[in-house]
Amino acid sequence: MKGPATPSSPAHRRVEVDALRDAGHVHRGDVVAVEEPLEIRLLREHEKAEHSNGGTGRSVSITMRTPGNDAELALGFLFGEGILREPRDVIDARPCGPTGNVLKVTVRADLPLDIKRLERNFYTTSSCGVCGKASIDAVTATLGMRTVGSGLLVTESVLRRLPDTLREAQSGFAETGGMHAVGLFDSDGELLASYEDVGRHNAMDKLVGASLLGGDLPWKERIVLLSGRASFELLQKSMMAGVPVVAAIGAPSTLALELAHSAGITLIGFLRDQGFNVYTHPERVRPQRESA
Amino acid sequence: MKGPATPSSPAHRRVEVDALRDAGHVHRGDVVAVEEPLEIRLLREHEKAEHSNGGTGRSVSITMRTPGNDAELALGFLFGEGILREPRDVIDARPCGPTGNVLKVTVRADLPLDIKRLERNFYTTSSCGVCGKASIDAVTATLGMRTVGSGLLVTESVLRRLPDTLREAQSGFAETGGMHAVGLFDSDGELLASYEDVGRHNAMDKLVGASLLGGDLPWKERIVLLSGRASFELLQKSMMAGVPVVAAIGAPSTLALELAHSAGITLIGFLRDQGFNVYTHPERVRPQRESA
Repeated sequence: MKGPATPSSPAHRRVEVDALRDAGHVHRGDVVAVEEPLEIRLLREHEKAEHSNGGTGRSVSITMRTPGNDAELALGFLFGEGILREPRDVIDARPCGPTGNVLKVTVRADLPLDIKRLERNFYTTSSCGVCGKASIDAVTATLGMRTVGSGLLVTESVLRRLPDTLREAQSGFAETGGMHAVGLFDSDGELLASYEDVGRHNAMDKLVGASLLGGDLPWKERIVLLSGRASFELLQKSMMAGVPVVAAIGAPSTLALELAHSAGITLIGFLRDQGFNVYTHPERVRPQRESA
Repeated sequence: MKGPATPSSPAHRRVEVDALRDAGHVHRGDVVAVEEPLEIRLLREHEKAEHSNGGTGRSVSITMRTPGNDAELALGFLFGEGILREPRDVIDARPCGPTGNVLKVTVRADLPLDIKRLERNFYTTSSCGVCGKASIDAVTATLGMRTVGSGLLVTESVLRRLPDTLREAQSGFAETGGMHAVGLFDSDGELLASYEDVGRHNAMDKLVGASLLGGDLPWKERIVLLSGRASFELLQKSMMAGVPVVAAIGAPSTLALELAHSAGITLIGFLRDQGFNVYTHPERVRPQRESA
């Protein structure tokens, strides 16, 4: 599922730098993570036929992303927003235009499209009352609060090994030092898929989109590992994907753990070979010493 | 400029965790970075008087941020978008409503407000032609390409010391492990101000907003240090603030260095005690060995 990450990949570019080190100053090549905008456009099948909107659909999102797996990114994004629910909702997802930075998703003609839902990110209040609780309420109101009911159990030793496994697969970071990664694991700690991107939410969207296409959603028996921090946005996407365990190598935020608590997700932070913290729903973690 | 970062601060919250380590398993307290939405509302002074929009203004942005210095965040954001240019543009910036998560900015009645400019983040194309170049063009078209013409020179040894100085000031990270920091330095490496946030763009906006209030913009003789990676968005904000040198502890993206190149900004990445890379405009960096 993961393409080769060579310097000739569209995800990386070779540039010239002045490297100033103790050992001396050299002008040399360096590999940098590519960041480009991706516009996601959405249209229904019959709209395409009628050439309404000139056949280019409605712009629903622009994100700064690393090129590659753009169709997965777009589908994962739309799944996370509650627009797509199953593979048959998608008729087609392909780049349009000369730059490759526009991805047009055609959905089946009778798919319910609540366009207001897409505007949730810009939800405004007529009074002055937005708060963290309101964010969770807004997500709940538009997406429905999903409670992840999986009986999955994971052992402590499996969890501790995940970061090394993801790191070995994370060739883009090795090349550029500038990519976030997201990995999907089974309960034995086997890596099933991973994606990298300059934006962590994009890496997650790519993972979700690939699973949607593969008919692998919801992730009832899966573990998601985030290479960075766990924010509200990533927990929202996790909730939509129905994953029972989310582990982050970095720290969680307050709103991330509030959503994890409400959605029934086990949230793990500061995951290392040496240990980790369990912030919510510890009942899924089975303590098991390596030496036992 | 930087408040105390104690666990009782609104920026941090104490939670209970299960900590599983080699040494054993304990249930203990942990300090987590607070993430809450902030809605920025904008209105002109006369609109306030007339109570149009119910006196609450127009919603221009919602960001997930760490509470604290919200007025600075809002003003910095609006400065970065080209809405505000000088301190006298701002009549008032204060929270409204019971939650503290809405910040209402009142600007002078005759301030030109191009509301389209605020919608730049959602800029759409009628054709399928968005690309990285188009992003830079869009920024240039709405904000004007600013070329930073500063003759500032910084020495290699000053640059190498910046990360340690910022780290010492970064109490929030020490508490939570989950905050980005941005620091403003003079050319001798003295830290003038720093801000932390769960979002790196918010930390930058807080820094810009504080300087706007203090009459310290543009940052002609300053260095900005980013605790993480350098993205397009952060370089855009740097360009607007007129800073000649941007240094990141993490990696830059391709689009960040393209914008830095065009805007005349010296962009440094992977800044460490042991050395760094100069990606653009190396003429401002004066190599100088510590031992010389």
